[in-house]
Amino acid sequence: MTVSTAIARLNAADPDFARHLDHLLSWESVSDDAVNQRVLDIIKAVRERGDAALVEFTQRFDGVDAKSIDDLILDRARLELALTRITPVQREALEKAANRVRIYHERQKQDSWQYTEADGTVLGQKVTPLDRAGLYVPGGKASYPSSVLMNAIPAKVAGVTEVVMVVPTPRGEVNELVLAAACIAGVDRVFTVGGAQAVAALAYGTESVPQVDKIVGPGNIYVATAKRHVFGQVGIDMIAGPSEILVVCDGQTDPDWIAMDLFSQAEHDEDAQAILVSPDAAFLDRVAASIDKLMPTMERADIIEKSINGRGALIQVRDMQQAMDVANRIAPEHLELSVADPQAWLPHIRHAGAIFMGRHTSEALGDYCAGPNHVLPTSGTARFSSPLGVYDFQKRSSIIFCSEQGASELGHTASVLARGESLTAHARSAEYRILTQEKGN
Amino acid sequence: MTVSTAIARLNAADPDFARHLDHLLSWESVSDDAVNQRVLDIIKAVRERGDAALVEFTQRFDGVDAKSIDDLILDRARLELALTRITPVQREALEKAANRVRIYHERQKQDSWQYTEADGTVLGQKVTPLDRAGLYVPGGKASYPSSVLMNAIPAKVAGVTEVVMVVPTPRGEVNELVLAAACIAGVDRVFTVGGAQAVAALAYGTESVPQVDKIVGPGNIYVATAKRHVFGQVGIDMIAGPSEILVVCDGQTDPDWIAMDLFSQAEHDEDAQAILVSPDAAFLDRVAASIDKLMPTMERADIIEKSINGRGALIQVRDMQQAMDVANRIAPEHLELSVADPQAWLPHIRHAGAIFMGRHTSEALGDYCAGPNHVLPTSGTARFSSPLGVYDFQKRSSIIFCSEQGASELGHTASVLARGESLTAHARSAEYRILTQEKGN
Repeated sequence: MTVSTAIARLNAADPDFARHLDHLLSWESVSDDAVNQRVLDIIKAVRERGDAALVEFTQRFDGVDAKSIDDLILDRARLELALTRITPVQREALEKAANRVRIYHERQKQDSWQYTEADGTVLGQKVTPLDRAGLYVPGGKASYPSSVLMNAIPAKVAGVTEVVMVVPTPRGEVNELVLAAACIAGVDRVFTVGGAQAVAALAYGTESVPQVDKIVGPGNIYVATAKRHVFGQVGIDMIAGPSEILVVCDGQTDPDWIAMDLFSQAEHDEDAQAILVSPDAAFLDRVAASIDKLMPTMERADIIEKSINGRGALIQVRDMQQAMDVANRIAPEHLELSVADPQAWLPHIRHAGAIFMGRHTSEALGDYCAGPNHVLPTSGTARFSSPLGVYDFQKRSSIIFCSEQGASELGHTASVLARGESLTAHARSAEYRILTQEKGN
Repeated sequence: MTVSTAIARLNAADPDFARHLDHLLSWESVSDDAVNQRVLDIIKAVRERGDAALVEFTQRFDGVDAKSIDDLILDRARLELALTRITPVQREALEKAANRVRIYHERQKQDSWQYTEADGTVLGQKVTPLDRAGLYVPGGKASYPSSVLMNAIPAKVAGVTEVVMVVPTPRGEVNELVLAAACIAGVDRVFTVGGAQAVAALAYGTESVPQVDKIVGPGNIYVATAKRHVFGQVGIDMIAGPSEILVVCDGQTDPDWIAMDLFSQAEHDEDAQAILVSPDAAFLDRVAASIDKLMPTMERADIIEKSINGRGALIQVRDMQQAMDVANRIAPEHLELSVADPQAWLPHIRHAGAIFMGRHTSEALGDYCAGPNHVLPTSGTARFSSPLGVYDFQKRSSIIFCSEQGASELGHTASVLARGESLTAHARSAEYRILTQEKGN
């Protein structure tokens, strides 16, 4: 049994390390012309024929025996029924998680502000929620109740008036945990449709599905492609790549814990990426041994093995400072600082979706119930983007209310700059507001 | 002279009004396969051949006689020289505008926060600036110094370490006002390159051009297409559609002022959209007369006429409440509330990029020097997006630091939910952290 020998071993002292690391991290999502064309056709059909197209595609792709759109609508009563169909322990866990997620996200809510200048001019920013958000939830195996909580709760905290969820039910298979999560999260309406057709319906509206302002939530390649196409018509969240974790360990955490933390990422997907960085070479060996030992005990050993051996790595660094450099280069979705004093290293981290501090904070706690969102920037995009949050469901309008004196004063400056840009209608519009007694200036 | 008769007249009482309004607003940017392919080829060449490709494209497309990349770099000293080449009045106007923009944007800066729970668990959000931002500035006629201020200042206020600007100089033509604005805004480096090749260089880096984390700024169809393609590799700001203004007037503002406000949008572009809404039919006639009267006096009459007659409209509504409904339907980039008591109507506005309140606040003041950003969501995207701001140059990392007690407690909840999703590595990773004395629970 030599499973772990296949995991890549890198050393930051290697002169070729940067190149090896680049290669390890390289990931470009494939844009397939055939997928693209099918998605465009589906969007066109839903825009033109609305509900009828939605029903047809759902019959064809999901094998659902729906006579009309009415068979694809679940009301709040059906969601409440789901609460009675899960175990009391599951219900309690969902409610506890939802409560913690809600409390954390309340802190992200942004308020309008304004200030008044000496001449009476008021400047500010008005913050308002989106009118309506659409939440895509995958069907089948990747149908996660935790994702429902993580996507719907920030929208509700932001004050979004209506949250509409779509979730396919392949061959009529309904996930009661997902519906229970939707109930707890306050989802207003559910349509049991999925794929590009569900995205098109949310973006453009049909007779029954209301048009939304933003679509969030994960999905397969058809869903991701459809989201790209409707972007601009509606807002979308990020297009996520495979999930990743970077564990930085000083060598003092139980190697079984670290191996299992790596597995928890790897079990998502063969393309998921789990990397351990440590200045302690012997510790890397001990984690490799734990990987060997634990692998045969895992339910998803097939997926984990492919992910660990194909995209995982154990990286030896000179010291913790170099570990921080590697972390910033990777800009990981999940970063575990499994070290004695994580607070000391936090200021060195510039880019990460979420930072799990200390030996006891396993990444899995963040996936479910710690409070922060589990929708995080992947593939190095933490360099410029943020976890999903309440701010994704709020938008801002600038407020400018000039006093007569203020408009007159600013009119001079605007006039000079507008004429410098040869935009004379701009200049004249500003000059009209220069007060008469000043016009000679 | 009957120019204004060509501007569309709509009445919200018309049973077909919604359809007419939809038609007036309809705008889809063309995605041209030929442009797409040329852009992909350019990106590929810059990724493969770096500086050499950049120099070649700049020679070919911009007619610039550059021997090497060194001829396409402007340092801070060159930017400071530009300050001496503009008039003192222009310099003062730029500095006054920059100062006001800076003061307003300082208010948008977001700080890290955290809170500690009863069991010692710490949750929070760490806010950090982007490392490096790229600013695209168009060359030639659309080269606006005000855009340099509006894009660079928020980045600098956010704390972005390096702001790199690219600006083409067609046939070697340099815009001193643009360079002076870059100097005042604190731009760190300038490359005189443009088009898709400049976007590719910023996204992937070359031997000389540093790779950035986000690219902002307006550009032509090649630039917009390139930005779409590099999105994911780097962040991008919005892809802007044509500029628009919606003026809501109670009929008591000088009609010449309103006509000029409409012109100030229309002069940007033949596709720009200027719409006036009023409950006062006689006032709409008076503005139409002002349009007639003022049109022949405009430097850009050709563009203004095409925009006003092709995409403009005068809309009569029943009352101010209906005017608000029309405004929310349009979700305009710029909204002027040219009414007696704009504060009374502000709560009714749900969607707008920027709101200009009162008769004296012309939109042009916001374009240059009021303080808020002039990069605003167009084409109805104010339903879900915001003005460019400091928040576009900051990103967040979630912080989770569980106490041993906290991790143990959360471990139970995470375990139940993870097993409900059949993710047993997640469950076991969480269960490892359940304290021994509790494990029987």
